[in-house]
Amino acid sequence: MTDTITIIGSGNMARGIATRAVAAGRAVQILSRDETTAAALATELGASVTSAAIALPFAGELAGDIVVLAVPYDAARELVVGLGSALVGKTVIDISNPIDFATFDSLTVAPGTSAAEELAELAAPGVNIVKAFNTTFAGPLAAGAVDGTPLDVFIAGESQSAKDAVASFVTDAALRPLDVGPLRRARELEGFQLLIMTLQVNPAHASFNWNTAVNVLV
Amino acid sequence: MTDTITIIGSGNMARGIATRAVAAGRAVQILSRDETTAAALATELGASVTSAAIALPFAGELAGDIVVLAVPYDAARELVVGLGSALVGKTVIDISNPIDFATFDSLTVAPGTSAAEELAELAAPGVNIVKAFNTTFAGPLAAGAVDGTPLDVFIAGESQSAKDAVASFVTDAALRPLDVGPLRRARELEGFQLLIMTLQVNPAHASFNWNTAVNVLV
Repeated sequence: MTDTITIIGSGNMARGIATRAVAAGRAVQILSRDETTAAALATELGASVTSAAIALPFAGELAGDIVVLAVPYDAARELVVGLGSALVGKTVIDISNPIDFATFDSLTVAPGTSAAEELAELAAPGVNIVKAFNTTFAGPLAAGAVDGTPLDVFIAGESQSAKDAVASFVTDAALRPLDVGPLRRARELEGFQLLIMTLQVNPAHASFNWNTAVNVLV
Repeated sequence: MTDTITIIGSGNMARGIATRAVAAGRAVQILSRDETTAAALATELGASVTSAAIALPFAGELAGDIVVLAVPYDAARELVVGLGSALVGKTVIDISNPIDFATFDSLTVAPGTSAAEELAELAAPGVNIVKAFNTTFAGPLAAGAVDGTPLDVFIAGESQSAKDAVASFVTDAALRPLDVGPLRRARELEGFQLLIMTLQVNPAHASFNWNTAVNVLV
C-alpha cells in the first residue's frame, strides 16, 4: 500500500502511530503547529515521511485519506472545527482519552457520551470519525507488541468503509484490528482506558509504567 | 487456606468460580434457590463442596467470609436486600453485568453509576461490596486460563481489606488479581464487558464464542 496517512501532532502518540504506518509501508504526512518538532520526527522516521506546519483555520488539502488526530482531546476539538471541509470524505481517527489528568479519577466528558461522539457532533457532514488507538500507549505502539503479542486496536465508528480502512492499516502494521461496533462504543473504550491509566500511576502496580497493553485472549 | 467461600447461585458462573475456589484449596458452600442443581454441582466438584437451599428473607448464617453473588444483577439486588444482616462484615463479590441482553447495546444502570455501586447503596452498613469476576466468562474461569495465560481478575471496592481477601483468593486460584481502585471503577469494568460481550455475539468475530478473556499485557 502506498496510501498516505496524515498524522496531525508531533508528540509521542504521533511517533508511535507514524512508526507503525511506516512499518505498514504507508507514506506519512506529519502536520504540526510545531514545525521544528514535526521535521525532526519526519527525519527520524525516514524517507517515506514528510512534515509541514499547520495553522488553523486551515484552507489547504490533507494528503491522506486517513487523518489521525494525534493530539489531546481539547486540541482535537479545535482541529475538527478548524480543519473544516478539509476533513470531508476523510477517515478521521480520534485517539483521545478525555481524562482529568489532575486526579486520574474521572472522564471530562459527561456520562452517556464520549470524546469521539462529541467530535462527530462538531465535525462537518461527511467527516467519518473513527475511534481507534486510544487504548494503545505510545511506547508499545512504537514497538508494535508487548511481551511478544501484537497490540489489539479497538475500532468504533458509524462508517463501515472508514472502519475497514483503519482495520486494513492496522493489519498492514502487524497489529490486530477489533471492530467493536458503532461510535458509541467509544464510551466503553475511553472509560476502560481511564481504568488502565489509573493502574500506571498506582504504586501498587510497580511493573505498569505506561508499557502495558489491553489484549483480548482467545 | 481452609477459609470457606460461599457462592450463591448454581449456574455457569457459580460453577466457574467454585471450580477455581476448589483449585485454591478452599472449602465451598453453594447456596441456591434450586436445591437440586446446587447439590448436583456440589457433587460434581467434590468433597470440599457442600450445598444447601436458600430462601429470602434469610435469617441464618453464611459459612464464608467471602460471599459471591453468582447471579444476574436483578437477583443480586434481591439477595443484598433479602440476606440483610447475614452479609454484615462479609466480603461480598458482585460479578454482575447489568446489560440489556435483548440488544447487547447498552447497560441497564444509568450513566455515571454501576451495578456494584447500586448494590452498595442497597446493602446494610458494614457490608463490603467488591466488584470482581465480571470480565471473566464461565468457560475460561473453569479452565483458569485462555491460550495458556491465567485470567486477569479486576477488583474494585472501597474496603482495602476486602479487596485484599479477594486478591488472596484469586492468587491462590492461580489467576492474576488486579486491584483497580475504588468501587466506582466498576463503571468502567461493566462498560468494557458490555463491549466484550458485543464481540461474542457479532458474526464478524467468529472465533469469539464466550471463550475470550481480557488481559493486560506487560
